[in-house]
Amino acid sequence: VRNFADRVIERSTILGSPIAAGFDPRVELLPRFLRPAAASRRAVAHAFVRHAELFFDGVAELVPAVKLQIAFFESLGPPGAFAYARCVELAAARGLLVIGDIKRGDIGTTATAYAEGHFTAGTRAAADAVTLNPYLGIDSLTPFLDRVASEGRGIFVLVRTSNPSAPDLQDARLADGRRLFERTADLVDEWGAPHRGTSGYSSVGMVVGATYAAELLALRAAHPHALLLVPGYGAQGGTADAIGDALDADGAGLLVAASRELMRDSAAAGDAKSAVAATRDAANRMRDALRRAFVSRRTP
Amino acid sequence: VRNFADRVIERSTILGSPIAAGFDPRVELLPRFLRPAAASRRAVAHAFVRHAELFFDGVAELVPAVKLQIAFFESLGPPGAFAYARCVELAAARGLLVIGDIKRGDIGTTATAYAEGHFTAGTRAAADAVTLNPYLGIDSLTPFLDRVASEGRGIFVLVRTSNPSAPDLQDARLADGRRLFERTADLVDEWGAPHRGTSGYSSVGMVVGATYAAELLALRAAHPHALLLVPGYGAQGGTADAIGDALDADGAGLLVAASRELMRDSAAAGDAKSAVAATRDAANRMRDALRRAFVSRRTP
Repeated sequence: VRNFADRVIERSTILGSPIAAGFDPRVELLPRFLRPAAASRRAVAHAFVRHAELFFDGVAELVPAVKLQIAFFESLGPPGAFAYARCVELAAARGLLVIGDIKRGDIGTTATAYAEGHFTAGTRAAADAVTLNPYLGIDSLTPFLDRVASEGRGIFVLVRTSNPSAPDLQDARLADGRRLFERTADLVDEWGAPHRGTSGYSSVGMVVGATYAAELLALRAAHPHALLLVPGYGAQGGTADAIGDALDADGAGLLVAASRELMRDSAAAGDAKSAVAATRDAANRMRDALRRAFVSRRTP
Repeated sequence: VRNFADRVIERSTILGSPIAAGFDPRVELLPRFLRPAAASRRAVAHAFVRHAELFFDGVAELVPAVKLQIAFFESLGPPGAFAYARCVELAAARGLLVIGDIKRGDIGTTATAYAEGHFTAGTRAAADAVTLNPYLGIDSLTPFLDRVASEGRGIFVLVRTSNPSAPDLQDARLADGRRLFERTADLVDEWGAPHRGTSGYSSVGMVVGATYAAELLALRAAHPHALLLVPGYGAQGGTADAIGDALDADGAGLLVAASRELMRDSAAAGDAKSAVAATRDAANRMRDALRRAFVSRRTP
């Protein structure tokens, strides 16, 4: 069983592209020709799957991973669950690592049920990694951690999120001087220590938003073994410079998750070929922007 | 639009039963005659729905609400999503308030997607209330709060969970002397203030485990307007005495969630009628135990 973090580092280094392409399907982001005439949940779910194929085709040779936001599928009810499972399968079939952005967190047998649902392939492929919420403590992660070791899966625990309200709880000042998210990061580091690969990175990673550049840099420095999943690039305000500062000497160690940035341009596409091309162009631009920022940081 | 907390208080007072009957379906808890010969996800999902009908029939005249743990459905992949939606519908059709135990938490448009998925009825009924995780701050709750006001929905925010690892983050001591969960509770109280009904209780409630009796009592006293959802009764170790102390003068103000306690006995049932009867007996016993504890607390 290959360590998840090692797989990420290897692919992102080969491709020169520390990107998790975010597929956040919404009706208004569908390529024009895929917009369903009827607004039934079933028709929209079907259009999401067709969009996913084009999106994955556009990014497949440029990024190591995709991140699927399950909420947009869940908004469609049961047909969305089928579409989500199908999208996981379609991405895996193209050789992409699949991160399920599920942000689950529950206890005991319930956490086990979530781990089964997301890491056990039924008739279809399962995600390689998922995002998890730490508020309930380590027993909410345990069933996932078991599969990190035995199946080469990965998890990314929410540490410092990219949204404006992130400080409500995460910035709570503790009696020992740390802020809550720093305590969370220390715990995740400890939980992840047994899961480090030959790359030095752990398959128990952290979600840290690009929108808080100072916190991103501080967490990167304090936790050199943590694989980071970094949302918030582009539309939300995170910059290539912020990422450039947080990359390791090999230009790796994290996955920048961007969605709007990569999905926006294909909305105007009139056919499949131009939707794929628009997605590919956007991914190329993002990769180049990150590379320029990285190089400029390393050149005195 | 009727306030959710008012509906809970009214029904639990009329029934003398502050109980949310927890439906946590698992193969080993299925009444014997419903256990599928094949272990396919589809067959299990179908059995969960048949079990739900009997469970809801057993509790319908004895409790105001049911709590459906979505993780056990999600463990089955897409067929589980259909089964979950069907169970929501079956419970609502019996006049039960439905709490979706989903513990979601995400940001911006993603949080909106979750709110759409769980509060918008598609072809089927939607939940009356859901549980949510506060780690991402108030913007993760906003789309749900909007529907609390406009549609009479409820939310229960995780404050102090019932599991052994709850202290990992929730008991972090803050610089101001509070523990993190107390800060969470203060925030939830503030967020819920605009959503109080004529009962005095807010439709923005808190999840507080029965397994930590001292914390439950302290939170009850500090937040008299918060409707509490109290898991952990029975199998996990929470006692009727702990609940008795936390009930208000009318024997209300919270919903005790119990699942194993109510589902265990029907597993041995050989037919539908005895499965319903076993569930009804268990719900009656639980109601009586809570009533005795309540009365003994009030009688000097």
